[in-house]
Amino acid sequence: MLSIDILRKEIEQEIGNLGFKRAPLGLYEPIEYSMSLGGKRLRPVMCLAACSLFTDDYAKAMPAALAIEMFHNFTLLHDDVMDNADMRRNEPTVRAKWNDNTAILSGDEMLIEAYKLLSMTDTPAFSLVLSTFSDTATEVCEGQQYDMEFEERDDVRLDEYMEMIRLKTAVLLAGAIKIGALIGGANDADIKSLYDYSIDLGLAFQLQDDLLDTFGDEKTFGKAIGGDIMEGKKTYLLISALQKASAEQRAELEQWLTAKDAPRADKVAAVRSLYESTGAKEATEKKMEELYAKAMNTLKLMEISAEGKRFFADFGDRLLKRKR
Amino acid sequence: MLSIDILRKEIEQEIGNLGFKRAPLGLYEPIEYSMSLGGKRLRPVMCLAACSLFTDDYAKAMPAALAIEMFHNFTLLHDDVMDNADMRRNEPTVRAKWNDNTAILSGDEMLIEAYKLLSMTDTPAFSLVLSTFSDTATEVCEGQQYDMEFEERDDVRLDEYMEMIRLKTAVLLAGAIKIGALIGGANDADIKSLYDYSIDLGLAFQLQDDLLDTFGDEKTFGKAIGGDIMEGKKTYLLISALQKASAEQRAELEQWLTAKDAPRADKVAAVRSLYESTGAKEATEKKMEELYAKAMNTLKLMEISAEGKRFFADFGDRLLKRKR
Repeated sequence: MLSIDILRKEIEQEIGNLGFKRAPLGLYEPIEYSMSLGGKRLRPVMCLAACSLFTDDYAKAMPAALAIEMFHNFTLLHDDVMDNADMRRNEPTVRAKWNDNTAILSGDEMLIEAYKLLSMTDTPAFSLVLSTFSDTATEVCEGQQYDMEFEERDDVRLDEYMEMIRLKTAVLLAGAIKIGALIGGANDADIKSLYDYSIDLGLAFQLQDDLLDTFGDEKTFGKAIGGDIMEGKKTYLLISALQKASAEQRAELEQWLTAKDAPRADKVAAVRSLYESTGAKEATEKKMEELYAKAMNTLKLMEISAEGKRFFADFGDRLLKRKR
Repeated sequence: MLSIDILRKEIEQEIGNLGFKRAPLGLYEPIEYSMSLGGKRLRPVMCLAACSLFTDDYAKAMPAALAIEMFHNFTLLHDDVMDNADMRRNEPTVRAKWNDNTAILSGDEMLIEAYKLLSMTDTPAFSLVLSTFSDTATEVCEGQQYDMEFEERDDVRLDEYMEMIRLKTAVLLAGAIKIGALIGGANDADIKSLYDYSIDLGLAFQLQDDLLDTFGDEKTFGKAIGGDIMEGKKTYLLISALQKASAEQRAELEQWLTAKDAPRADKVAAVRSLYESTGAKEATEKKMEELYAKAMNTLKLMEISAEGKRFFADFGDRLLKRKR
């Protein structure tokens, strides 16, 4: 079985070959820019890896892998418009480098390009590949919708938060892996197991991201710590804290959250401390561990090669920054 | 062969059955709203009609016809964001009734829904149907890009304008008709003829729309006359006028076009008069007539039923508001 790094290099090369140097440049240059910014290429890598579990000819999944990466980048262009975001991965977003209209229209074209790439897939399972892709795309839009709605709500429950991050984050990784497996010719049981594994791992990854946003190290996290706290984002941490807080803790927490003019460092430190004293941090870590363990157990029970299992277990460890 | 009105009723009924009363309502209600606003449903009607030229089972093309209408409405949602448009067909746009973010995200979902509908098509030509749809969608985005770029340019040529309206307007009608014919089992020659017919007719229709925007009757046109003049839109009329104008006429035209504080009625009347005296109106009418005649000639040479020819000729006449 190949390594994550080799698969990633193959994907980078294929992305470089996509060729968006065509007219009208105003439409295609932002696509080339967005696709060239890099990132970990997790989803296309895992799409190829899932395919390779069932066939040596894993390159059959390359167009679909690229389609998923294209779709992922399309969502970034439009999310950045909706969030007025100027920076991503330390580079200006398309809306910042060009403008909102460009990000909307080039994003639209990226969604169409994603379908064009997907359509190049040569497989008897094409109809299922196509419906999996579209159903996943719809779920991602639903997740973004819930995420926006939660900003306006004060009564978001933990189960609602988990469903939102399932839709917004986990299903695209799971869809990528399912599509790779479908193209590889996997049976229904293996597809279901891989899908469940990916959803649990995706959820654990998002909870880890929430924890790092609040408790992480600025240098390794790559952006300023405390962003979620400053935005009052209803994360697992915040919802748990409000649930577990004593009357006094709750009052203190709500005071800090609504304090518009408090210095950032003070606010972040105070809320962080409340996340610890209420047990919210511990609850989030526990939930993340449970999901990780569940994903690994699903993998363990699968009837695939030991090598394949090791690859997917390593991926989980890498995603969740664990040493073995 | 069925009538346009019967086909339209069948399409309206199917649109009513699409069922977007599902969670999250914030994502799906704008889709239901947009699809229920009506309009002439030209493209899906002609998709079914093209199919019915080659098979009695024209209902096979219904999912594709709905996909094309869904795609068309997706473009309206996003175009209205890009143009800051508040009204369409005398109703508030999605961005006006909700907000920009809703129009972006619900629009994205509509593009995905369009692909889902298209995927329901049961035909041996599915791969060609899918690529025709995606290629058409790309061309529509390219057309929108050129349209936006032309706003910033003062040197747009007539051939560039014709290419822009081909992409932005004509290809979607032509794509709808081609897809219907593909599903109906048409041969390559018939598909090419129908495509050429639709492109020419679509171009003629857009030139007519330009003429009506400037010389039409407010009551029958449905919106205020002179919008293109007030926006300084580089239409066939304006580009021709600048080409044909004497030095004096050109100076007068440019003065009016840059006069920001001139009363609307004066400005529209003055530019209209220059469109007549320069011969730009006549040139636009001539071009429109040529395209109409070319479309009708392509149709005449086709080897399809007399009834089929009559239907498509009637459609052309209706589109271009001609009495027979």
